[in-house]
Amino acid sequence: MQQAWRLSELAGRLGGHWREGADPLVTGAASLADAGPGDLSFVAGPERLAEALASAAGAFLVPAGLDLDRPSIVVDRPYEAFARFLALRLPDPDRLYPPGVHATAVIHPEAEVAAGSVGPYCVVGAGARIGAGCRLGPHVTVGCDAVLGRDCVIHAQVTIREGCLLGDRVIVHAGTVVGADGFGYLAGPNGQVKIPQVGIVEVQDDVELGALVTIDRATTGRTVIGAGSKLDNQVHVAHNVRIGRHCALSAQTGIAGSCTLGNGVITGGQVGIADHLEVGDGARIGAQAGVIKDVPARAAMFGYPALDFQESFRITAALRRLPAALARLRALENRGRGPAGAAGPEQGK
Amino acid sequence: MQQAWRLSELAGRLGGHWREGADPLVTGAASLADAGPGDLSFVAGPERLAEALASAAGAFLVPAGLDLDRPSIVVDRPYEAFARFLALRLPDPDRLYPPGVHATAVIHPEAEVAAGSVGPYCVVGAGARIGAGCRLGPHVTVGCDAVLGRDCVIHAQVTIREGCLLGDRVIVHAGTVVGADGFGYLAGPNGQVKIPQVGIVEVQDDVELGALVTIDRATTGRTVIGAGSKLDNQVHVAHNVRIGRHCALSAQTGIAGSCTLGNGVITGGQVGIADHLEVGDGARIGAQAGVIKDVPARAAMFGYPALDFQESFRITAALRRLPAALARLRALENRGRGPAGAAGPEQGK
Amino acid sequence: MQQAWRLSELAGRLGGHWREGADPLVTGAASLADAGPGDLSFVAGPERLAEALASAAGAFLVPAGLDLDRPSIVVDRPYEAFARFLALRLPDPDRLYPPGVHATAVIHPEAEVAAGSVGPYCVVGAGARIGAGCRLGPHVTVGCDAVLGRDCVIHAQVTIREGCLLGDRVIVHAGTVVGADGFGYLAGPNGQVKIPQVGIVEVQDDVELGALVTIDRATTGRTVIGAGSKLDNQVHVAHNVRIGRHCALSAQTGIAGSCTLGNGVITGGQVGIADHLEVGDGARIGAQAGVIKDVPARAAMFGYPALDFQESFRITAALRRLPAALARLRALENRGRGPAGAAGPEQGK
Repeated sequence: MQQAWRLSELAGRLGGHWREGADPLVTGAASLADAGPGDLSFVAGPERLAEALASAAGAFLVPAGLDLDRPSIVVDRPYEAFARFLALRLPDPDRLYPPGVHATAVIHPEAEVAAGSVGPYCVVGAGARIGAGCRLGPHVTVGCDAVLGRDCVIHAQVTIREGCLLGDRVIVHAGTVVGADGFGYLAGPNGQVKIPQVGIVEVQDDVELGALVTIDRATTGRTVIGAGSKLDNQVHVAHNVRIGRHCALSAQTGIAGSCTLGNGVITGGQVGIADHLEVGDGARIGAQAGVIKDVPARAAMFGYPALDFQESFRITAALRRLPAALARLRALENRGRGPAGAAGPEQGK
Repeated sequence: MQQAWRLSELAGRLGGHWREGADPLVTGAASLADAGPGDLSFVAGPERLAEALASAAGAFLVPAGLDLDRPSIVVDRPYEAFARFLALRLPDPDRLYPPGVHATAVIHPEAEVAAGSVGPYCVVGAGARIGAGCRLGPHVTVGCDAVLGRDCVIHAQVTIREGCLLGDRVIVHAGTVVGADGFGYLAGPNGQVKIPQVGIVEVQDDVELGALVTIDRATTGRTVIGAGSKLDNQVHVAHNVRIGRHCALSAQTGIAGSCTLGNGVITGGQVGIADHLEVGDGARIGAQAGVIKDVPARAAMFGYPALDFQESFRITAALRRLPAALARLRALENRGRGPAGAAGPEQGK
Repeated sequence: MQQAWRLSELAGRLGGHWREGADPLVTGAASLADAGPGDLSFVAGPERLAEALASAAGAFLVPAGLDLDRPSIVVDRPYEAFARFLALRLPDPDRLYPPGVHATAVIHPEAEVAAGSVGPYCVVGAGARIGAGCRLGPHVTVGCDAVLGRDCVIHAQVTIREGCLLGDRVIVHAGTVVGADGFGYLAGPNGQVKIPQVGIVEVQDDVELGALVTIDRATTGRTVIGAGSKLDNQVHVAHNVRIGRHCALSAQTGIAGSCTLGNGVITGGQVGIADHLEVGDGARIGAQAGVIKDVPARAAMFGYPALDFQESFRITAALRRLPAALARLRALENRGRGPAGAAGPEQGK
């Protein structure tokens, strides 16, 4: 595919207006900080003008009215135009996922496959249904009675277990497992007795699941990933969790069983949320935080155990003063006692 | 399969006694808190009576003598009967794993496969042995000389590396890797030199491994997962670890090399245990804890670094008072010094 | 393969000198602490003499001049000779990875495969190139235009996405995903808008990636894993990260987007490093640490948030004294006030 464009030519493709003048050749794209002379970058708004002036980018996507005397295209929303430019550089999907069902795919005669592309060695079970426009990479397993909507992209080695439901335009990266059994046992006289996990997973429209994510099926009912939510690599979602719409869970986050997350919840990496908790709409949980009680809507939490971020930051700052504070405390105790106080309560511990 | 039952009919199937009266149609199952009118729930004992009275469940499994005036089946152990009810609702295994060896499976002529079901595109190496009644999903790889006992269930995309041993009734969820090389290097003059990992993994009877678990082979000897232990999704077990019987390790826990866990050890999610430690029988490690020294039997640990949970909770509570305590300490220092003390030791830091 | 050797025979194979005398049969290998009578162990230097004397090993690899009156081979570098002995015990690679391209592999006609072994059901896309001597296990997917150098070992179920580059002698363990999309979105009026990820991953010579690792492709440009670096199981490396040479990242570590790690960086297990940070050459990050600012070269960091390990250890030690210190602070306050002071500021909180 084409990998170099004159700026003037890009203006039309990105729905913008070329500021006549220099017309450099654009071969790449990067943020203001990282861009070099061949790169197109973008200036989100006037507050980024200083960064733009300092940037080595060869060309810019800018909003109307921005006073930047550099080769530019004026667009309504610079970041959206930038994403469109990146999309121009994506490989041809028909090369990555050749149209049609590969001859080696094992499709059960009772499955319905309207997919645009089914890769080599896919396995589709009885009763499964795959919507039009879906692209499945190699070695994808779709279990019995699982349903995929339209225009999903399922990368190599993904396992969708029996009965699970995916909406439209869902993207699932390589190696992810949707619908493994939840981790449920009852303590019996001879060890743990497995509780059959007879529920399913429902992944709603426009969700993206990273690589090597696990979403467990419900014990009964559904584990739900709400529309538009994005889960990064190696995220784990336990059985009976309900995640709202437009959440973003960063890599290696783990959500224990039966939690409910509202809409627009954001977690940093390696966050843990204990079981049966509620996290309100728009809550933000800092990286590595350990949530052990309900989180109100729009709260920002940090730390282990997680606290409101302002309190957590105060504690973190105070901690660095703690060793000296203990010495000061000791000094105060001694001051009050005279020399005999040297054998104070600290030694008594 | 059948998905609705009269309560009176269920009584016989679950080995219980229907309290004559209302005979509702049961279509689902849930905990007391989550159940609705079509659901069967269970009351573990009299201590749950208030919850049962508040539950919207349509029917209950109850122990003898419980005074609950709702549609019920009396059983010896309500939770076991509940698990049996869930099992009634599992899909037909012959539909999920059609009996026989799929035509596309690549079985080495020197392998012995007595399995009940080998899915499409499985690969079984030279010298491997798979016991009677095993069910293998699609794309399972069983390496050379690996041995699976009887009645194992191995889900899609699992890799069992060469020489590893699984007992009877082992369940392995999708994408899990048993027997990858341990992380062992020696510092050499030109960087790290790989230490060949020539040991194996032994997974004993009745173990269940979640999805995307990794259990590394030993450098020499065996990495062992003891009988009846359950490992949740994304757990990592390093080389030469020995895990006892009936342990339960929650999701994303990591056990570093050469640790020994006793029997009945339980970890919360995202726990880390440093290398070469011993964790005694029945120890419980709270979620996200970081264990950096040996743990006595039956201890309960929490925090990072992990401490006895009572001490850890005291510290956690004290931390929230720390910022104010520093101010109080300052006030005390000033009190003793008069106005000149304002430039106290805190500024001197 | 042979699994027992006379010590005198091993001396020649390991490039050492047998100290004549006892010539036991060696059937295994282990560290000094773990070894038994059939095992060969090694003594790195005189500082390990006491351990060696206490060891139950049947034979030893020792440096010249070590005064150990036990069956021994004298070698220049005991640990290197020990690794060579382990290598003798590795299974025959031609048995694990039979030479040639398996008949079931789907190789695109526009791919170039010089590999020594391509396992069953591998899928190699258009434009991909696989160097001489590579061994691919079953179910490996190599995307369009991906390039593997010489003598790589790629275990079962690995996914190398389109365009990614692997150097020579790279080892990738089972289930790992190289080149999944980075986690990048722009907040739009109707939720998150995906930023196309058009960069690649470059994995340099002599890198080893554990099982179920994820390395995301760059948004633009390259995510880089430097030559000789080793990543343990379940490590996650986000888009646009640059990892230097000879780093060692322990299991379940996560590196967020656009971080730069120098050469020789070592992390313990479950470490998290926040996005856009720089970690200097030779830095060491303790297990479970959470790095939230740049780390100088050769620093040793610990804790959450991560601090210099000496400060972190001082704080950790001080924390255990904190609950008692609060009581002592209270006592001091009361001492200064007399009985009326009992309702001091602590109650006022």
